[in-house]
Amino acid sequence: MDIPSDSVGFVTPTKVLFDRALPLSSGAVLHDFELMVETYGQLNAAKSNAVLVCHALSGHHHVAGYYRDQLKSEGWWENLVGPGRPLDTRKFFVIGLNNIGGCHGSTGPRSINPETKKPFGSDFPVVTVPDWVNVQALLADRLGIDSFAAIIGGSLGGMQALQWSIDYPERVRNVIAVAAAPKLSAENIGFNEVARQAIMTDPEFHGGHFYEHNTVPKTGLRLSRMLGHLTYLSDDGMGEKFGRELTGDPGDDYQFGFDVEFEVESYLRHQGDKFAGYFDANTYLLMTKALDYFDPARPFGGDLSAAFRKSKANYFVAAFSSDWRFSPKRSKEIVRALIANRLNVSFAEIESSDGHDSFLMPIEQYHQLLRGVFSRIVV
Amino acid sequence: MDIPSDSVGFVTPTKVLFDRALPLSSGAVLHDFELMVETYGQLNAAKSNAVLVCHALSGHHHVAGYYRDQLKSEGWWENLVGPGRPLDTRKFFVIGLNNIGGCHGSTGPRSINPETKKPFGSDFPVVTVPDWVNVQALLADRLGIDSFAAIIGGSLGGMQALQWSIDYPERVRNVIAVAAAPKLSAENIGFNEVARQAIMTDPEFHGGHFYEHNTVPKTGLRLSRMLGHLTYLSDDGMGEKFGRELTGDPGDDYQFGFDVEFEVESYLRHQGDKFAGYFDANTYLLMTKALDYFDPARPFGGDLSAAFRKSKANYFVAAFSSDWRFSPKRSKEIVRALIANRLNVSFAEIESSDGHDSFLMPIEQYHQLLRGVFSRIVV
Repeated sequence: MDIPSDSVGFVTPTKVLFDRALPLSSGAVLHDFELMVETYGQLNAAKSNAVLVCHALSGHHHVAGYYRDQLKSEGWWENLVGPGRPLDTRKFFVIGLNNIGGCHGSTGPRSINPETKKPFGSDFPVVTVPDWVNVQALLADRLGIDSFAAIIGGSLGGMQALQWSIDYPERVRNVIAVAAAPKLSAENIGFNEVARQAIMTDPEFHGGHFYEHNTVPKTGLRLSRMLGHLTYLSDDGMGEKFGRELTGDPGDDYQFGFDVEFEVESYLRHQGDKFAGYFDANTYLLMTKALDYFDPARPFGGDLSAAFRKSKANYFVAAFSSDWRFSPKRSKEIVRALIANRLNVSFAEIESSDGHDSFLMPIEQYHQLLRGVFSRIVV
Repeated sequence: MDIPSDSVGFVTPTKVLFDRALPLSSGAVLHDFELMVETYGQLNAAKSNAVLVCHALSGHHHVAGYYRDQLKSEGWWENLVGPGRPLDTRKFFVIGLNNIGGCHGSTGPRSINPETKKPFGSDFPVVTVPDWVNVQALLADRLGIDSFAAIIGGSLGGMQALQWSIDYPERVRNVIAVAAAPKLSAENIGFNEVARQAIMTDPEFHGGHFYEHNTVPKTGLRLSRMLGHLTYLSDDGMGEKFGRELTGDPGDDYQFGFDVEFEVESYLRHQGDKFAGYFDANTYLLMTKALDYFDPARPFGGDLSAAFRKSKANYFVAAFSSDWRFSPKRSKEIVRALIANRLNVSFAEIESSDGHDSFLMPIEQYHQLLRGVFSRIVV
């Protein structure tokens, strides 16, 4: 396999054990926990060049680089992170982690519950964005990082970046929140709820304890992902990509049946099948709930600008024209709350037909903007 | 029960048998078929005052009026049809029917397949909008109606109204197509496909022959309807209606669990449960497929204006500002094709936060416009 010269190259994740109790927003307490972590670049002597990358719903610690002897193993933000890339690992020490509740090696529903000696399953406590931020702060402590040069994330990842500047204002100098929202709308929650119901009403879910039944609620997970994909894309983008094209030979008539027929059906079924083959259903539930609960203005009587009162970071907020899941309008709500606090904030609305998924795409204007933001950060 | 004086009052449906073969677009042939029909008002001597109301995905023949001794039995377009209402039954003879493939009494998947003496189930042939229009024309023949004063429908119903003017240009004088589209986009098809997959992967579906197993794929149907509702409403409308309100007492904290919690979750689950209790899963599949296949430009090499070349009707096309399922942009595509044929066409984009569902709502501007359209029709 040829690795591009501006990739971080082959990488290996590390499992970091935290042998301490972790109190959560829900009141539940984890006895201890582990985090899967990857880092790229070198932490400088002043420990001032660390950048934390927060992942979205289905993301994880493997942000960049490749795994040796594994095909198609590039990290989910490979196009952004590397020597010479917008988030330049020659300058920055970049950290990716799998959040708790995840299914990529950090403590989550598949982990053993010390009380029952069985997998947690649905007994894994509900986790929130502030919980994740607390855990990330503990990881920073472990690495000796007092203050992050930047914290960046898209979607649910962007929400974590914003929460950092609220909960740990002294510990983050730049916040980059892409395709995020200050809270979910009723429609957003509705889509998450349909996905959750698809999983929870799958007979193979077994109340979240499917591991013990040696099964997986694949049908529900598959539907959740198909639906998810529809909300990550845009009507125009799907029109360009699939249109009303049929999967058969050109000139074929309709099949007058319910087998896969339109290209878009084939795409969605494929995405659903792939996802259901590796992702954990309980993690999916937890991630969507963390999204629904995210509402930093809530402890401040709904006043978002009050939430950012102690914040000190510089902010770069970006949104994409065709993103209807978290539209540019929602990013502007964040921007207004930041401006009300006279914070240093830049905002970009980027033209793209790729919908919410745009935040993962190497869109030229977007990457140029991020390159500029990172190049101006003093470490 | 008090029946409003401008309602058509108590009504009774009629079952009409067509003892003749019905060839379908797919090549399949129904041996014979029955239609459930309701009519309101009186057909005049010249038989020139008939208005056909075409139903959408989950609609049926019961358009207006009430069923005796049945609570909450008003027709689905009760607010539109009646003496003194916009579609005035003192002037017009109004016909509603359940399309074939339906589950409200017309020949459909629950009917007995003469070949097997069992319910058709998934062996019921795929039906298309042109098939329905052909059947409606046979019903018109039976009633002695050469030409409809108007054919009206919303969503999939509007598509039937449009198809009438293409296939039977001499037999319809006014077409009223509300919240319709000239064909489904990839995203539209995608949402239908997720709904179909929810039904078809429900273990209780039994390949569409669940009747024989004395069961119903309720889980899948429920998910389909929850998802459907999300696409019928709008983000703004749901924000106004539900916001992020919790179902518990004011001041309650989050529950940190997966029971119903936000008002929007409660609403969607309720709508899904209700629908799954009475609607037929095979009908749902058929209706969504008819939507996906609707593409009157297809036989004309994709040229929509060519499709309307023989049309003679006057058109009223209406769309709603917050309808993202079939947005005003899609209605304008229809309007442009009609104008290209120098047809008499009026178009209205109506402000509403009710999304696609607006076509069923008694929105004042909308009903005023329809009142005007119907009042100008000469019978």
